[in-house]
Amino acid sequence: MAVQSYTFDGLELECGARLGPVTLAYETWGTLNAAKDNAVLVLHALTGDSHATSLGLPGEEKGWWENIVGPGKAVDTDRWFVICSNVLGGCRGSTGPATPRPDTGKPWGLELPLLGIRDMVAAQDLLVTHLGIPRLAAVIGGSMGGMQALAWLVTRPERLDAAVVLATAARHSPQQIAFHEVGRQAVMADPDWADGAYYEGEVPARGLSVARMVGHITYMSDKSMAQKFGRQRLGHGAKFSFQTDFEVEGYLRYRGDSFVKRFDANSYLYITKAVDDFDAFDPPLKVRPTGQGPRVLVASFISDWLYPVYQGREIAQQCQQAGFATSFAEIESTWGHDAFLLETERLGRLVRGFLERPEERS
Amino acid sequence: MAVQSYTFDGLELECGARLGPVTLAYETWGTLNAAKDNAVLVLHALTGDSHATSLGLPGEEKGWWENIVGPGKAVDTDRWFVICSNVLGGCRGSTGPATPRPDTGKPWGLELPLLGIRDMVAAQDLLVTHLGIPRLAAVIGGSMGGMQALAWLVTRPERLDAAVVLATAARHSPQQIAFHEVGRQAVMADPDWADGAYYEGEVPARGLSVARMVGHITYMSDKSMAQKFGRQRLGHGAKFSFQTDFEVEGYLRYRGDSFVKRFDANSYLYITKAVDDFDAFDPPLKVRPTGQGPRVLVASFISDWLYPVYQGREIAQQCQQAGFATSFAEIESTWGHDAFLLETERLGRLVRGFLERPEERS
Repeated sequence: MAVQSYTFDGLELECGARLGPVTLAYETWGTLNAAKDNAVLVLHALTGDSHATSLGLPGEEKGWWENIVGPGKAVDTDRWFVICSNVLGGCRGSTGPATPRPDTGKPWGLELPLLGIRDMVAAQDLLVTHLGIPRLAAVIGGSMGGMQALAWLVTRPERLDAAVVLATAARHSPQQIAFHEVGRQAVMADPDWADGAYYEGEVPARGLSVARMVGHITYMSDKSMAQKFGRQRLGHGAKFSFQTDFEVEGYLRYRGDSFVKRFDANSYLYITKAVDDFDAFDPPLKVRPTGQGPRVLVASFISDWLYPVYQGREIAQQCQQAGFATSFAEIESTWGHDAFLLETERLGRLVRGFLERPEERS
Repeated sequence: MAVQSYTFDGLELECGARLGPVTLAYETWGTLNAAKDNAVLVLHALTGDSHATSLGLPGEEKGWWENIVGPGKAVDTDRWFVICSNVLGGCRGSTGPATPRPDTGKPWGLELPLLGIRDMVAAQDLLVTHLGIPRLAAVIGGSMGGMQALAWLVTRPERLDAAVVLATAARHSPQQIAFHEVGRQAVMADPDWADGAYYEGEVPARGLSVARMVGHITYMSDKSMAQKFGRQRLGHGAKFSFQTDFEVEGYLRYRGDSFVKRFDANSYLYITKAVDDFDAFDPPLKVRPTGQGPRVLVASFISDWLYPVYQGREIAQQCQQAGFATSFAEIESTWGHDAFLLETERLGRLVRGFLERPEERS
């Protein structure tokens, strides 16, 4: 679908500030049924956008979850009315640090208040209401999208039938914070960052590229990197240089450079910070009569060392203890964290089964 | 000991170039015996130096392997004559990119030829000869020091009685190369790096600091970070800022900033590149009659995800297949890669036993 946008007055943020007006860019696929009970909200990861799928339409850019969302796919657009919006704080059509301030007409930059995952969800909730949907059949997302799904579950259980929480953690460990902090420091170390006020000059391309390179290492596994690159070398000039040499180096630089073209450095700072600050179970979940409220599916991937299986299991345990009907799956994969994007077959079967056959739930 | 230095004419490098003159900074502890058969060469990691120990002397700066090397310690300076030199390419007294070129009097910078781990070892070999030692009782090192120990074993088995190879790999996996490459890119992204010609201006402090932060994450484990930092926060100002917030962030920035004060950015580039290029078993080891040649001890630490246990096991298997009497130990620890520096009790017992009781070797 073409990207649409919804602008609303604003909202109170977790940090206490009020932000408004707020725009969310979003896309939808499929048709909302008469009962308005077939809406599924898809939630993107750190650097994603509203374009989850092209529905396989020729000439349209592929979506980031093309293999999971579409006609006949696990999130079947023939059955579900699927919505995906760019997160609050993002740079792909939604309000974020690159958006002009209403009072000055200049980009917010670092004057944008601190955002949290719960703020992203609050904005999505207003979009869902705007679309005339009283209650979502499901929310589903991986990585930061999984955190948003969890935030929906803990803050708005009455608005959901089900939540699918993939490849994520209820809260970041210090190691996970540390990887994000290195990325932020790389951005902030770039003189072109200029304390976030770079919008009229050069963007901090070198810093943001390094940040993305760190990210990519954490998204893959030791094994998937070994399979993809081994120790293969690119051409090696006669004179030694510190330019790329091993294929893995060329790949990382390529990914870093591409990222810079499509992503705003300040958005990267705000969104990584929101992820680090998130703690799904603080305040703790209220315990409900067993089986009341949304059904929950939590899945982790065994080669995902960024969000290890134990963190998924913890989420499932907390949800179970709070009385939600919860399933937990440990999915075989060598893809590392990227498995939630790439492990189509196994993940697709699991998600489809969970969404379509509630009577068989564990 | 006070740091001494040995300067020799030069050597032919792996890359084909000749480098000279070459200086190695070194320290020794203990006494070489009359038979000259009690010398142990200690080999430092990426950013180490010749100061392995202070021998516990008051007023002297602690060494990087203080708890393993010293009187009555695992590498017992009452028994062994212990030598440690700063590696070729380093910046702690040995010839490296910060050293003035003999022809121009200006620092080598990136004009210094490419160095390899085998070049570091060739330089050490000349130092050992200079010290009047015909044959080493042992070489021992962890991480890049373990690679040097391996390089000694594969290139100069006739000069050794034993090699102790800790927390390392025979060759870097693409994941290991990738982490180094991110560090190098962080340095090179800093405008102050100036293509390596920064010696008369500002050093690339921001880039080098980010590089070191990445390194520190890989040296610790998920668990050791959780134990050390949890999600504890530093003071959090009223206004949101991207300054440090979680304790782990403050720690990493502190480590990054301290590193910049003691390390040369170009040395960091040269040495990480030498590590990435190293392949201990290319060319393959010649198979020798079983049990001939140096004894080998290989050890890995179970929480070390930078140099996982399978890489240590591979080294041991290759050594065994080549006919060396080889022991392999998988050591319990939660310290991650840093375990070779911190797991004093378990590692110390193992090393002491291996060095002192050859008759009990497996």
